[in-house]
Amino acid sequence: MYLSKADIESTEKIKRLNIINSVSGIKPGNLIGTRSNEGQANLAIISSVVHLGSNPAYLGFIVRPGGEIRRHTQENINDNSYFTINHIQTNFIENAHYTSAKFDHDVSEFEACGLTEEVLYDFHAPFVKESGLKMGLKHVESVPIKSSGTTMIVGQIEHLIIPDKAISTEGYIDLSATAGIGISGLNSYYQLEKMADFPYARVSDLPDFNP
Amino acid sequence: MYLSKADIESTEKIKRLNIINSVSGIKPGNLIGTRSNEGQANLAIISSVVHLGSNPAYLGFIVRPGGEIRRHTQENINDNSYFTINHIQTNFIENAHYTSAKFDHDVSEFEACGLTEEVLYDFHAPFVKESGLKMGLKHVESVPIKSSGTTMIVGQIEHLIIPDKAISTEGYIDLSATAGIGISGLNSYYQLEKMADFPYARVSDLPDFNP
Repeated sequence: MYLSKADIESTEKIKRLNIINSVSGIKPGNLIGTRSNEGQANLAIISSVVHLGSNPAYLGFIVRPGGEIRRHTQENINDNSYFTINHIQTNFIENAHYTSAKFDHDVSEFEACGLTEEVLYDFHAPFVKESGLKMGLKHVESVPIKSSGTTMIVGQIEHLIIPDKAISTEGYIDLSATAGIGISGLNSYYQLEKMADFPYARVSDLPDFNP
Repeated sequence: MYLSKADIESTEKIKRLNIINSVSGIKPGNLIGTRSNEGQANLAIISSVVHLGSNPAYLGFIVRPGGEIRRHTQENINDNSYFTINHIQTNFIENAHYTSAKFDHDVSEFEACGLTEEVLYDFHAPFVKESGLKMGLKHVESVPIKSSGTTMIVGQIEHLIIPDKAISTEGYIDLSATAGIGISGLNSYYQLEKMADFPYARVSDLPDFNP
């Protein structure tokens, strides 16, 4: 199927959302945990977490204008700077998916969706007990992306938990071993099966691709 | 395994790169195609493509300071505004991986890595013939992310090709059917197997998670 810019613009809204939300490829599935200054826990599914730097260890994610659910996340981060990122794993995908419903502000998505709030290291933001790979971050910067009206929220990792069985001595993390998942579009979930590892690519070690 | 901020800082550099590049979760594997004003094609593997908006259809990706390989990509986009995003698929993962080697500026990664340059729609930037899901974009904005010294390059989709067999009438794209892949860290590749689809999440249709 071919779509030009004009075809995309004239596609019916929901179908366009489904298509354009899928074309970036597989997306990481994470739950962002925050807490209001009044103590109310909040949990939001986010598929836009991206690596920004390793030293300092920075991750970012995108929030949308008028995104009612994620707005609570952004408000809590603006109010007290702390959030957690918790990998979604195969055994709680449906719970994670439904955190995107428009719950009232005083409802905890943890409770409504059958997930368990976990307090660790005296960290202000709640972790997801069910998640094996999770981290606590402190807000560093909010970057407006003017063209799209979105904002990138950047945080630094202060606490990081990785299942022992999933990490090698070199620091490679096996996302099959963590039962990690990926998201396509707005509502499709994929399991991950490791296919290949390749060494750091050097011109001197290039395989013969043109025999 | 638990790592504090101080533990992360004191981890040996390569191991830290491996760990922190993995903790965002699965990453989309894409090849970015560009062309210099002199006509030289360039191809770079990028695992940070992210959805920014559906109308207009905006995608972004991250470039790093001093990233020698991706610098050519950024220079070409600054010079003429056009780039392509091509999904990496299971049958050409190794070719795609080696585009990250530090080739000289006058070497085409297409040729060196056994991939085929494809010109479509008179678009200035080259597409990857081997890729079934690909798009041509026009540069819209470059957003500096000051904290990490990185830049988000934003583009609007002008041309979009999706395999017929992978898209439903509602616009859902099945990344198993496209033979799409995911990346963990810097060098691990995963195949994708669809596990579940869930409807748009409404509070009124919430499954009973707390029976």
